[in-house]
Amino acid sequence: MIQPDRNDRQFMARAIELARQGWGRTYPNPMVGAVVVENGVVVSEGWHSAAGHAHAEIEAFRALGRNPQPGASLYVTLEPCSTTGRTGACTEAILQSGIQRVVVGTIDPNPVHRGAGLDHLRQAGIEVVEGVLAEDCADMNLLFNHWMSQQTPFLAAKIATTLDGKFCAANGHSKWITGEAARKDVMRWRRYFPAIAASAETILADNPALNSRLPEGHWCPRRFLFDRTLKTLPHAHTLQVFNDAQAEQTTLVCSEHTDISSAQLSNFNIWQLPEKNNHIDLAAFRNRCREEAIQGVYIEPGPRWTSALLAEQSIDYLFHYIAPKYMADTEAPGIGKTRRTSSMNEAYTLAHTRNKSLADDLLVRGSILPAQ
Amino acid sequence: MIQPDRNDRQFMARAIELARQGWGRTYPNPMVGAVVVENGVVVSEGWHSAAGHAHAEIEAFRALGRNPQPGASLYVTLEPCSTTGRTGACTEAILQSGIQRVVVGTIDPNPVHRGAGLDHLRQAGIEVVEGVLAEDCADMNLLFNHWMSQQTPFLAAKIATTLDGKFCAANGHSKWITGEAARKDVMRWRRYFPAIAASAETILADNPALNSRLPEGHWCPRRFLFDRTLKTLPHAHTLQVFNDAQAEQTTLVCSEHTDISSAQLSNFNIWQLPEKNNHIDLAAFRNRCREEAIQGVYIEPGPRWTSALLAEQSIDYLFHYIAPKYMADTEAPGIGKTRRTSSMNEAYTLAHTRNKSLADDLLVRGSILPAQ
Repeated sequence: MIQPDRNDRQFMARAIELARQGWGRTYPNPMVGAVVVENGVVVSEGWHSAAGHAHAEIEAFRALGRNPQPGASLYVTLEPCSTTGRTGACTEAILQSGIQRVVVGTIDPNPVHRGAGLDHLRQAGIEVVEGVLAEDCADMNLLFNHWMSQQTPFLAAKIATTLDGKFCAANGHSKWITGEAARKDVMRWRRYFPAIAASAETILADNPALNSRLPEGHWCPRRFLFDRTLKTLPHAHTLQVFNDAQAEQTTLVCSEHTDISSAQLSNFNIWQLPEKNNHIDLAAFRNRCREEAIQGVYIEPGPRWTSALLAEQSIDYLFHYIAPKYMADTEAPGIGKTRRTSSMNEAYTLAHTRNKSLADDLLVRGSILPAQ
Repeated sequence: MIQPDRNDRQFMARAIELARQGWGRTYPNPMVGAVVVENGVVVSEGWHSAAGHAHAEIEAFRALGRNPQPGASLYVTLEPCSTTGRTGACTEAILQSGIQRVVVGTIDPNPVHRGAGLDHLRQAGIEVVEGVLAEDCADMNLLFNHWMSQQTPFLAAKIATTLDGKFCAANGHSKWITGEAARKDVMRWRRYFPAIAASAETILADNPALNSRLPEGHWCPRRFLFDRTLKTLPHAHTLQVFNDAQAEQTTLVCSEHTDISSAQLSNFNIWQLPEKNNHIDLAAFRNRCREEAIQGVYIEPGPRWTSALLAEQSIDYLFHYIAPKYMADTEAPGIGKTRRTSSMNEAYTLAHTRNKSLADDLLVRGSILPAQ
C-alpha cells in the first residue's frame, strides 16, 4: 500500500473540517468532505450538505470549475461511491475529471460496496492512498457506519455524572452537574441523531423539550417517551413534548400489557412493545426502529435505566459527561445494582474512546464492549 | 503591560520543555527553563538541573559562551531571582549579559520576593514581558508554589477508579483498574514528590515497594505508612517497605495512644500523632511535615481514606486516574459515606483541572475547593 505523507494528513484534516459543516443535515447519508490540491495548495473544497444534494467530491469539482491540473490530488474522507444513487456515481466523475491521485480516509462501511469504489479507480490506473486519518474520518459517521455494517439502529445513551459517578444529590437534585459548554455539546449530539428517547420519570421530573437548541437553529428529532404504564398521561396537558409545535414528533412507548383503549390516547403516537425485567424490552424497540428505518437513537437515561442498559448490554455506545466534582455520598444515585463482582474483568468496558474537554467538564465517549 | 506575541509563546513552550528535564531532581527548588533568542532563532538553552546547580538563565548564558547580540531576548519560565542564594542573583547575571528584553512565564510565588526580580530589571531599563504561558509554567511547580505561597506542605492524593467511581470489585479485587501508561504516569509523579504515604491496609493487601520505578532509574522517596495501631508490625519481616535497601526511608505514622515501647520498634522510624475520627489527624501530619521541611506528600489512599480526606478537606490536590470501565455494582467500593446531600452545591469541586489521556485511561487532576 502507498504510504501517506504528512501533507496528506493535513489536507485530509481540512476535508474533515468541511465534512462537519453537514453536521446533522446529511442523515441518512454520512458526512463527507473533499478537497482538490494542486502543487501543495488547496484549490477547491466541497462537502455533502444534505441528503439528495451532491456528494462532496462533485461539489469540490464544481467549485473548481475546470479540470484539475496534471499532478493534482483529490482528498475525500470516505471512499467514493461506485453506484449510481440519486446523484450519479462519484467514481465516474473522478475518472472524467482526469485526476490521477485519490487519497481516502475510510472505506465504505456497507459490506456490499466496501472497497468497490477504490478497486474501480485503481483499475482505471489512478493512484489510490487509503486510511489517512481513518479513525477520525470514521468517528464522524458513527451512526451511519453502525447502520451500514450492523444493519441495526445505533443506540447510544448520554449520561452526566460527577467524578465519583453520581447523577445527582441524594434527594435527586441535579441542576446542574455539568456546565454550559457540556450542555451545549449535548444539544449538538441531539442534532446528530434522528431520534431521542427519555423515560417517563425524566419527563415528569424535568418536563424537558427534548429538542436541539443551538445558536444556528432549533431542531426537533423523533421523541420517544419510554412510559411502560402511561403514567405521564394524567399530566400530558402540562408536558412540553405533548404540546409544543412538534408534538407530532412524540411517540409514547408503552408495554404490550398496558391498556391503550382510552379515548384520550387517540391523539397520541403509541408503540406497544414487549416487557423485559419490568421495563420495555430494548431489543424489541431496536427492531421496531429498524423496521421504520430510524437509524439511531440518543437515549437520555437516569441512573436506574443506565444500569439496566449496561447490564443487559442493550446499547451500542455511551456519551459520559463528567464534572470535576465529588458528591462523596453513598446515598446519591450512581450506576449499577448489587451484583457482587469479584474481578475487574466483570467491568463493562468502553472501546475506541474519545475524550474532549468542555470548559471544566469532560466528555468520554466510546463503544460498549461486552463484559468478559 | 507589553503584550506577548505568538513567537513569545513558542519560545516559552521550548523553555517549559527544557525545565521539565529537571523533573524530580530540582527539589526543593522549582523546575525552570530558559532560552536565548536572536533574530527569531534559539541560540542557547538552559535549565535548572538540580538544587545547588546553576539556575536556568545562568546555564543558558553559559551555553551561549558570549554576550547576546543586540536585540536578543531571554525567555525564562519563572521570574529570575534577585537575591543571592547558593548560586548568585540571576538578575545581576542578566544585567551583566547586556540583554535588553526578558520574557517571563510566572512570577516568583514567594510573597517576599514576588515581582522584585522584574522590578529590578525594569529599573535597569530592560523591557520585561510577563505572563507568557503563565498557567503552564505555574503548573510545573505545583509543589514549590504551594509551599512558597501557603507556607505549608502540598498534600495530594492519587486515586484510580472506573468511570462509575469504583476502586475495585465488590470483593476488593483491583488489579488492574488502569493500564500500563497510567501506572507509569504514577511512577513519574512518585518521582516528583519527596514523600509518599499509604495506609496499613494497602501495605498489607498489596505489599507495594512505594518507590518510583522508571526506565531512567529508580528512586525512593520518604515513605509514610499510616498505621494507627501498628497492625503491620507482626508482618514487618515480609513487607518490602521495611526490608528493601531503602528501609530507612520508611516511617510508621501511628496514634499517640498506641504503645510504642516494644523492643521490636527500636529499629523503626516512628511518628506518633494525634487521632481524629479514628484515624491519624492529617492536620497534625501536615504540621510535622512542615517542621521537617517535607514540602509535599503524595498520598495513595483507598476508598475509605479518600472519603475522609475529602470530607475533612485535609488535602490540597487530587490526581484521579479513570479507566473507561463501569463496575455497575453498588457493592464495589467508591468514594463517600452517607451524608444525605440535597444539592449539587454540596459537591467537592476540583479547580484548575488538567486532563490527560494515557492510552485508554484518563488523568484528571486539580486543586480541591472547599464545599460551599
